[in-house]
Amino acid sequence: MTPGETAIARCDLFRHPPYSEEASALTRRFLTSAHKAALETLAGWMQAANMAVRLDAAGTLIGRYEGTGPRTLLIGSHIDSVRDAGAYDGALGVMLGLGVVEELARQGKRLPFAIEILAFGDEEGSRFHASMTGSRFISGTLKDDPTSLTDEDGVTMEEALRGFGLHPTGLRTAPHREDVFLYLEPHIEQGPVLEAENLPVGIVTGIAAQTRLAVTLSGMANHAGTTPMHLRKDALAAAAEAVLLLERIAAQAGIVGTVGAISARPGMGNVIPGECVFAVDLRAPSAEARDAAERAFRTGLAEICARRGIGQETTTVQQLAPCLCDGAAQTLLAEAIAAQGQRSFRLASGAGHDAMSMAALCPVAMLFIRCRAGISHNPAEHVEAADVDVAARVMLAFVEKLAGTAEL
Amino acid sequence: MTPGETAIARCDLFRHPPYSEEASALTRRFLTSAHKAALETLAGWMQAANMAVRLDAAGTLIGRYEGTGPRTLLIGSHIDSVRDAGAYDGALGVMLGLGVVEELARQGKRLPFAIEILAFGDEEGSRFHASMTGSRFISGTLKDDPTSLTDEDGVTMEEALRGFGLHPTGLRTAPHREDVFLYLEPHIEQGPVLEAENLPVGIVTGIAAQTRLAVTLSGMANHAGTTPMHLRKDALAAAAEAVLLLERIAAQAGIVGTVGAISARPGMGNVIPGECVFAVDLRAPSAEARDAAERAFRTGLAEICARRGIGQETTTVQQLAPCLCDGAAQTLLAEAIAAQGQRSFRLASGAGHDAMSMAALCPVAMLFIRCRAGISHNPAEHVEAADVDVAARVMLAFVEKLAGTAEL
Repeated sequence: MTPGETAIARCDLFRHPPYSEEASALTRRFLTSAHKAALETLAGWMQAANMAVRLDAAGTLIGRYEGTGPRTLLIGSHIDSVRDAGAYDGALGVMLGLGVVEELARQGKRLPFAIEILAFGDEEGSRFHASMTGSRFISGTLKDDPTSLTDEDGVTMEEALRGFGLHPTGLRTAPHREDVFLYLEPHIEQGPVLEAENLPVGIVTGIAAQTRLAVTLSGMANHAGTTPMHLRKDALAAAAEAVLLLERIAAQAGIVGTVGAISARPGMGNVIPGECVFAVDLRAPSAEARDAAERAFRTGLAEICARRGIGQETTTVQQLAPCLCDGAAQTLLAEAIAAQGQRSFRLASGAGHDAMSMAALCPVAMLFIRCRAGISHNPAEHVEAADVDVAARVMLAFVEKLAGTAEL
Repeated sequence: MTPGETAIARCDLFRHPPYSEEASALTRRFLTSAHKAALETLAGWMQAANMAVRLDAAGTLIGRYEGTGPRTLLIGSHIDSVRDAGAYDGALGVMLGLGVVEELARQGKRLPFAIEILAFGDEEGSRFHASMTGSRFISGTLKDDPTSLTDEDGVTMEEALRGFGLHPTGLRTAPHREDVFLYLEPHIEQGPVLEAENLPVGIVTGIAAQTRLAVTLSGMANHAGTTPMHLRKDALAAAAEAVLLLERIAAQAGIVGTVGAISARPGMGNVIPGECVFAVDLRAPSAEARDAAERAFRTGLAEICARRGIGQETTTVQQLAPCLCDGAAQTLLAEAIAAQGQRSFRLASGAGHDAMSMAALCPVAMLFIRCRAGISHNPAEHVEAADVDVAARVMLAFVEKLAGTAEL
């Protein structure tokens, strides 16, 4: 088996019970028996590759492969899943990290730094209303105590932690890590860009800054038959202009903007909409690009509403800072990719990842692997073994290049 | 009191119990005690104006003022209301007709034709799922027997008719009227055109042809963060273009087009809409103008969907033929309006009226009276006495001009 085939086979094994809570679908949520089964099997593979294994207070499984020097490279991703998930979101990154160490162990090779493989237990937030609990704990950014949160069955996170053999007070004290110099996260792209570029892997430049807005437009509900076009204040027609405005702004700026939800009131076919509510999601590699797009949208929306005699209220629902990937690490990844005879290609991540939290602890890097049609959070999620092989070779070349850099 | 003040005062009297089913709002539905109370009072006013009063099998109160010849002019509107209604929708037309006969009776004047004042008991369809029952009965277009329909309390129309002293089998045989030469319906505009034109009354050219479409657009639901703009198939963005296309087509054609309801699925802020469903309402004075607009919309929609890679399904939900008002009657109304020193102005009705049904029996004419801000089906519905005075004078002048025409 190639390294890619091995990584895929391990993810596929983890599709089914005991690694899934359900027999007919993959669901592996934080601190469930499926999560525990996965960690037990993972721990066995880690130990077989000469790694020291431990479980931290947040349920993150950590396998350490010692180096000749004091510093540590972290490689990881999450091992939990959404409900009815695909097999590769998160898990593939863990398996790829494991594969790197297995190859080093096979060669009996020690690097100037240790490598720790991390399998975070909660990235998706699919059990409790908290996500990235594992990476937020390690990076010291788990500010609110999540242990009193309950799942849909009324089980608290505290109870679930105890059931996992963990003590909830452990979450109160973040680990103090000064040895870590980089966190590398391999992850399926969950988007269609690499497929469109016909590339197996891509270098992530950063994780998008995000702004979510809630917009309410107020016009005048009126009879659809008796109100001439020029006397209307149609809130939905104004919203339609806003949807296209956002699309145009995002396309021109090379970022993404989405109206995913909309409703018109009173919502009857023969009544002109007097009110229209819609949601705006704007993401850009930098806060500056995002904020410029938001300003352009707000200005354009104000113009639309003024021209149409429509009232508007736009509120900011969420604003997330961007996470920039380390420039030097991106350069090394590009060299490692070029060394495999592949074109090195950079792209931003629109989706959130554990790397966002880890950026509070150390520089971060991400390698994206092409997935079919960009489909994720879906059983149809698919990766090609040849692509995963490229990723495995890129990662090995990357850690070897890291080992050769002067500063380590 | 002026004729306008009298008509308004009568409508305002009918706002309250026993003429309304509710104490705090005007609700006067078909065959209720509020309806009965209104007819009893109306009948008294009719008799005082030397009219012979009868109730037909569909609960329409008919007051007949004899003429010197065999032919009959019908003047009418509906006396029923929606829930929480305004006082003038329908009722004002009945009161204006009554006022014309009262003035003739006061003068002791007989015309070459009889005048019958009709107060239809069901135009709104606010009690049973049938509307225009009164006018459909008289015009012989009540094709499906409505007597087994039930109201929200489970009372059948048959039971309600019996409670009103009517025999449900009476609805089976349409009256045979060969004496009727014209139906005139005065009605509040229920739209903002006359207010915008600064005119008290307007001549209706016809009641709009209507088409209602249901459109389903199918794109590809995807992650709002990871899918670049140029790789999206956003069903809502396509729908936004369609909303603006419809608005543009209607405005250019001088007709009305409305998207009143819309939904995007899955309807989450961070997911690109994979499906969008919306309703189209198109109305035009002629079927030709409506059909041309529908063709332009379908062609434009197909272009939008082809360009965006979106699937579409557009189905016709309803198609109503237009009703044209009699040309000679429009000319006489214009003369009658000019004789009051007013500018005669013609407009199409986008809303349906009893005149639509009556057109199957005889030529029809409609006179619109300005209502404030076009508001109707709302307690805020308002007319100015001065406007209703103009309408009363126009109607009197109109029937006198009719009496002077050779063909009668």
